[in-house]
Amino acid sequence: MITLHTWTTPNGRKISIMLEELGLPYEIKTVNIGKNEQFSPEFLSISPNNKIPAIVDDEAQGGPLSIFESGAILTYLAEKSGRFLAASGPERYQALEWLHWQIGGYGPMLGQLGFFGVRSSEKAPLAIQRFTEESERLLGVMEKRLAVSRYLAGDNYSIADMATYPWTIAASTFLKDILGESLASKPGIQRWLKEIGERPAVQRGMQIPKLA
Amino acid sequence: MITLHTWTTPNGRKISIMLEELGLPYEIKTVNIGKNEQFSPEFLSISPNNKIPAIVDDEAQGGPLSIFESGAILTYLAEKSGRFLAASGPERYQALEWLHWQIGGYGPMLGQLGFFGVRSSEKAPLAIQRFTEESERLLGVMEKRLAVSRYLAGDNYSIADMATYPWTIAASTFLKDILGESLASKPGIQRWLKEIGERPAVQRGMQIPKLA
Repeated sequence: MITLHTWTTPNGRKISIMLEELGLPYEIKTVNIGKNEQFSPEFLSISPNNKIPAIVDDEAQGGPLSIFESGAILTYLAEKSGRFLAASGPERYQALEWLHWQIGGYGPMLGQLGFFGVRSSEKAPLAIQRFTEESERLLGVMEKRLAVSRYLAGDNYSIADMATYPWTIAASTFLKDILGESLASKPGIQRWLKEIGERPAVQRGMQIPKLA
Repeated sequence: MITLHTWTTPNGRKISIMLEELGLPYEIKTVNIGKNEQFSPEFLSISPNNKIPAIVDDEAQGGPLSIFESGAILTYLAEKSGRFLAASGPERYQALEWLHWQIGGYGPMLGQLGFFGVRSSEKAPLAIQRFTEESERLLGVMEKRLAVSRYLAGDNYSIADMATYPWTIAASTFLKDILGESLASKPGIQRWLKEIGERPAVQRGMQIPKLA
């Protein structure tokens, strides 16, 4: 059985979407970052960077395996199941380049925009400007891709889409006041959002964890 | 033959280190980001995110293949050569989790600290504080790992070390005024820096591209 340590954030939802897509049995353990539960010694032993998501797979090859970092977890689950990431060839590396684009750019920049532009009561105009411009640039890169490609990695839905979708939902909700207009003017992204959002597994994954 | 499109930055040097480690023949094309050469249409067709590094492998399975994003390139080269990333099992995913930790956290946070703390003439104290604290936290996570593990992924040198080394050199040079003291007090990182820095391939890779 796989245990998913997660919370109601875009990075957590990447993994609940993937697990729902795979139909693998899994158990959810919530890590309430509002209550600093990510700093508990128990969680630290699984996730040394103190961040969700993390998984423990009791049935991994060679014994129980814990993995942190959403990009590594998505790659692990894709390789374990043989799904949503080609085993070799150009398609594999197209998925990995867009996955890394999300992990190294799109996620961090939108995350910083969320802090400086929405969450922080103290305002730093230089930071708001920088992260707004960078987020807009990244949305432009994504639009160019999705205007000519059905999915980020090409013809097939992959872990790159699963990684990017929850952050694009954050852009259109939490960050709506800053990025909403720009998003609305990008037909490729809108078409992709609709198509991904209609997948039942994505709809279920985006509701996890359910809070009492 | 592989062509490496690169510049004198930590992300570029990850790939020149890997190519030097592998001893593969490769050609260097400089992309001078000080002159905005990353925005040329020719480069954009290889790297749609307008960033170095990118590679083109003329001898890839199935025809010439271009790849952008340093993490995807490292993974490609590791899988092409069968080196510096285990093909399966726990060791593979330990390398991938630390690779993603560098790509998604350590690189972006140190990069933002470089902008707000060093390069920008306009100062935003809130941003400097945020990225200093986050960089210090990440150095602490790295120290904890390297205090008990020879390399980031465990007993074997991997693409996770190659990704993290050039950014740690940046922390001890470009960011020295902010992070130097903290780095100096971390014996695990210092031991690792020395060991990695003594590798001839790393020494060569860190000098690429040589500028006229």
